[in-house]
Amino acid sequence: MKVVALAGGVGGARLVDGLAQACELTTIVNTGDDFDHWGLRICPDLDTVMYTLAGLANPKQGWGIQDETWGTFERVQAMGGEDWFRLGDRDLATHLTRTHWLRQGLPLSEVTRRLCKALGVTSRVLPMCEGARPTTVRTETGWLDFQTWLVRQRAPQAWEVRSEGDPEPAVGVVDAIETADLVVIAPSNPYVSVDSMLGLGGVRRAVGAARVVAVSPIVGGRAVKGPLAEMIPNLAGRPATAAAVRAHYGDLVDGFVLQHGDDAPGPVLHEEIIMGGREDRTRLARAVLAFGETL
Amino acid sequence: MKVVALAGGVGGARLVDGLAQACELTTIVNTGDDFDHWGLRICPDLDTVMYTLAGLANPKQGWGIQDETWGTFERVQAMGGEDWFRLGDRDLATHLTRTHWLRQGLPLSEVTRRLCKALGVTSRVLPMCEGARPTTVRTETGWLDFQTWLVRQRAPQAWEVRSEGDPEPAVGVVDAIETADLVVIAPSNPYVSVDSMLGLGGVRRAVGAARVVAVSPIVGGRAVKGPLAEMIPNLAGRPATAAAVRAHYGDLVDGFVLQHGDDAPGPVLHEEIIMGGREDRTRLARAVLAFGETL
Repeated sequence: MKVVALAGGVGGARLVDGLAQACELTTIVNTGDDFDHWGLRICPDLDTVMYTLAGLANPKQGWGIQDETWGTFERVQAMGGEDWFRLGDRDLATHLTRTHWLRQGLPLSEVTRRLCKALGVTSRVLPMCEGARPTTVRTETGWLDFQTWLVRQRAPQAWEVRSEGDPEPAVGVVDAIETADLVVIAPSNPYVSVDSMLGLGGVRRAVGAARVVAVSPIVGGRAVKGPLAEMIPNLAGRPATAAAVRAHYGDLVDGFVLQHGDDAPGPVLHEEIIMGGREDRTRLARAVLAFGETL
Repeated sequence: MKVVALAGGVGGARLVDGLAQACELTTIVNTGDDFDHWGLRICPDLDTVMYTLAGLANPKQGWGIQDETWGTFERVQAMGGEDWFRLGDRDLATHLTRTHWLRQGLPLSEVTRRLCKALGVTSRVLPMCEGARPTTVRTETGWLDFQTWLVRQRAPQAWEVRSEGDPEPAVGVVDAIETADLVVIAPSNPYVSVDSMLGLGGVRRAVGAARVVAVSPIVGGRAVKGPLAEMIPNLAGRPATAAAVRAHYGDLVDGFVLQHGDDAPGPVLHEEIIMGGREDRTRLARAVLAFGETL
């Protein structure tokens, strides 16, 4: 079964890890929160997806690599450098390598392909686009770039989310969606991760023409990870529920997977959607795929 | 007493550290072995001088920072990246910061001033020039860039040493030499470290007009550190002795400091010139300064 997953950070990455065990998978990853830090190009969602697929992800913090050390960070801090965004020593190898390759003129998709190869990731991972498409968030103090909003200011109330720039989707993105048997929208933040991808030229149309299952990132009124639950009331004018996420996707989605006890208009599949280790991920992935086949 | 030191790597850095305790010091540092690695600008001699002055230098290996960790390096290695030149995690903070500032358009002298400030180095450190002036070495297999020769190929027989490019000396270099009461040529490799500086426009003339003491990098026919002793027979056509180094500097030098038991034409000062900790360095520095005053 040929499947395309649209994924943001940690929740998305875990489902993707399950799907990679269960089907022929292409993962399209949000790059809206990519940014430059310490002179390096940082792609948080790509890294989370790659590290998770490589079995290297830090299981607790939802970003970075397990068994991390902080020698560089501590020295940068001691030297009075920027310390609002933590980069671990092992993680830095990825950022250095990526930045070096990008500066040599390689497109992000090729850089990602090489990083995946170097990390032993065998399923296909595509950045949503090659060029910059930064997500910005409007708060009471004005528009903030994504990492300033999320990490530096710890996600103050968001009143609007916007993607700046209109690059082409990366080569292979639209084609992968068009030729997929199923598109899975992973349990990622619809406003800051998924909309960023859907807004790229041709992507919404291709997804609209496909069979699509979305997995809820909201469980019992709370986000499994991140600030989504606090965003929904402002951005959708309704309580933070799985149904609000389902409504956000509207006609684009043919089936919705949500937690036992949560509600949304059908067709739905109720499942345990909080994923721990690989077993959980594969179980949920198989359920999502089987559900998709019934639609 | 206003003193300028011309310094390369570890031996030079240790004397510089002693001089910094004993006089008003400007250190001019060789940048001929600077190179790009992992997309970062690496300035080995500047770093050795700064780390030594900051009390951070690794006392054993002669490069890098003490109590180093290798998280980034090990990941780069695991990913199949370039691993012939080791960069530690703590050391990386310097390279990242420098590269970031250089990419923002700051000249190397300003970057170095800021790094010194961040590292708590209070004496003045100047790169010899802002632009590139790479040292290359001719071996049996042809011309090699410096780090390829020294680190990657472990210093095969050198038949010629050349500095490529002819940038201006950094702002302040010639002026510092011209206004110094004494110029000290530190115990660094004359061919690959000191000649690189002397060959810059105006530097040899300014040094020639100054009172100059050189400290021997050869002790009992061996280099205290590095491949100098193996280079002298090929490059000077005579055995590797302190006298060969003295002859290399010729008229430029007014007095020469060398190890008890070694010989060179006078005026000379015999001293214990192998330096361990700060006490050794300050002792030798004070002896060098006092000797300089007698010339």
